[in-house]
Amino acid sequence: MNYTHRIQRLQRSLQARRIDAILISQPENRRYLSGYTGGDHGIEESSGYLLISQKGTSYLFTDFRYLEQAEKDTRDYEIVLYPKGLLALCKEMLPKLGIKRLAIESDYTLHSTACDFFKMGEEKSIEIIPTTDYITDFRLIKDDDEIELIRQSVHLNEEVFQEVYRGITGEETELDIALKIATTMRKKGAESESFSTIVAAGANASLPHAVPGDTPVRKDTMILIDMGLIYKGYCSDMTRTFTLSAPDKQYLEIHRLVRKAQLAGINAIRAGVTGKEVDSVARKVIADGGYGKYFGHALGHGVGIAVHENPRLSQQSLKKLQAGMIVTVEPGIYIPGWGGVRLENMVVVREGGCENLNRDTTFLDI
Amino acid sequence: MNYTHRIQRLQRSLQARRIDAILISQPENRRYLSGYTGGDHGIEESSGYLLISQKGTSYLFTDFRYLEQAEKDTRDYEIVLYPKGLLALCKEMLPKLGIKRLAIESDYTLHSTACDFFKMGEEKSIEIIPTTDYITDFRLIKDDDEIELIRQSVHLNEEVFQEVYRGITGEETELDIALKIATTMRKKGAESESFSTIVAAGANASLPHAVPGDTPVRKDTMILIDMGLIYKGYCSDMTRTFTLSAPDKQYLEIHRLVRKAQLAGINAIRAGVTGKEVDSVARKVIADGGYGKYFGHALGHGVGIAVHENPRLSQQSLKKLQAGMIVTVEPGIYIPGWGGVRLENMVVVREGGCENLNRDTTFLDI
Repeated sequence: MNYTHRIQRLQRSLQARRIDAILISQPENRRYLSGYTGGDHGIEESSGYLLISQKGTSYLFTDFRYLEQAEKDTRDYEIVLYPKGLLALCKEMLPKLGIKRLAIESDYTLHSTACDFFKMGEEKSIEIIPTTDYITDFRLIKDDDEIELIRQSVHLNEEVFQEVYRGITGEETELDIALKIATTMRKKGAESESFSTIVAAGANASLPHAVPGDTPVRKDTMILIDMGLIYKGYCSDMTRTFTLSAPDKQYLEIHRLVRKAQLAGINAIRAGVTGKEVDSVARKVIADGGYGKYFGHALGHGVGIAVHENPRLSQQSLKKLQAGMIVTVEPGIYIPGWGGVRLENMVVVREGGCENLNRDTTFLDI
Repeated sequence: MNYTHRIQRLQRSLQARRIDAILISQPENRRYLSGYTGGDHGIEESSGYLLISQKGTSYLFTDFRYLEQAEKDTRDYEIVLYPKGLLALCKEMLPKLGIKRLAIESDYTLHSTACDFFKMGEEKSIEIIPTTDYITDFRLIKDDDEIELIRQSVHLNEEVFQEVYRGITGEETELDIALKIATTMRKKGAESESFSTIVAAGANASLPHAVPGDTPVRKDTMILIDMGLIYKGYCSDMTRTFTLSAPDKQYLEIHRLVRKAQLAGINAIRAGVTGKEVDSVARKVIADGGYGKYFGHALGHGVGIAVHENPRLSQQSLKKLQAGMIVTVEPGIYIPGWGGVRLENMVVVREGGCENLNRDTTFLDI
């Protein structure tokens, strides 16, 4: 990845907005701009921040524990440690660097931290400018290198799915399968899961965010697997629902309806339509089939360095899709007590339509 | 756990502070007050919020995906969904409930979200009161039930360590061992790892937050394993550093020094001393041994529902320890290019001293 290019693009934007520098705290934005892979333990325990000015040196602020990782990962940054914390370092460095207008990421800075920065700003005569979606907007449209990595991430995810799927004996629990997926991902070169793998058998499949447990995965129950991995920094996300023996009539009806909604959604995607329009097309298929009230979530979301990012395919998404965006298309029908079917693929938005990144067709067309 | 009791304690505090209600967003605080186990995907994708008033009904706000989980986990809360998001629901409900003064968790609310709440407050004549460490202060001192669960978490973690440790053949990579640890934890009943397991062989052990990779774990290299799990909601955290063949002179010297520092730290812990005092005692041992500049992190941290929580044993910790607090004691010496040794146990602070929760003594006393 060309981080120098990304930094320069940001610097031009800072110049245009008359912002002296921006402090990057959001982990995916940080990785997008630097390649730094340090792992955070939630927002309360960051592994580092970037300070990028209109011109001149860019800085990676971190602590002792991440120094070697930071040195290994980055070329474009001078690394500075903050033994007394981020705020103390900023108080010292910002005036030295002549920064008078500092942007912070309002949508990834705790309110308490922002208050500390406003207070520092008053003391040091620095204007603090809260921004939202600044870098995430840069990340919306993927360049060819990114699309290629996401494609590889999707294919590796499918390879893991196929290996685990072929190995299911009907003697496992949900947890056994989830652990096998996580282990296989890592052994095949993924950095990690992109989210906690969902394996839900039978009635558990009605929980869209089911946690894998002791429930047996029997050959005669439906099985929903929602899984994704991170490969070279880029995420994949895929859901398959299937049965290992002949499915009953209701299952078939619901599965076919979900697949029909998915195809309708995919067919509606092209540059220029809104996320809401695409969501509506798929939602109408499920409503017309009589299951409208059992599809409670949005149709899809963007995928990139983050597994859930903009744009969204939802009733709230009024912005137009653009070529180079990558989204999931994942309708579902969930019936408490019975189970649920969700089917999820990833597509790249193109000018006249979209390109399916998935090759796996397991049970999509029963 | 007696959530009713915890809610009542909070309600008395709200009354004393003349706050009508508090919105809880921090996941561990949410679990502490409700038992709700919904999993968040970072601060940007919450699985729910609590609204607790001075008296009357307590609410759990969540979305469709987590409804069944919320119903399964909680008894003391009325569950309300927010199809249009948290803010829209608050705008509707808070005036109906007559809430005029609403506390939010400033230390777990994004600045952008807080701004939305301040704006809503102006529209609806609700005073928004940012608080910090409100519920985390309740969590500082563990009751007997919590200490017992943490003890079980520590012992299960040791059991996993012993099983994996005994199985090491010298043919594995760091990643193989890390995956075996994660899998064994889950199979033995842990909810999950409490953080990403660290397995670092040889020179990699000099990265305090090393990510397990392809490096072979050979019998003649040092191996550092830092691992923890969540058992019934409570965390454990333990580090062992060892070699599988006779260690060389430098390794022995450093290992003994770290162990000496750990014991000095443990012996200094009792109700009434500050975290800084304990940190200083252990730090002096390492400095006196000539390795002061290679111990760059704090001596320890609190452990409970969160694996890293207050109190800290660090140079910044000026508050006195109290009986019932649980902390790690984990000095380390890290030499880039050579490797590192860290030893970590967990103790309960008592009136006249402290109680070691660990039973495992692997290589602590070479």
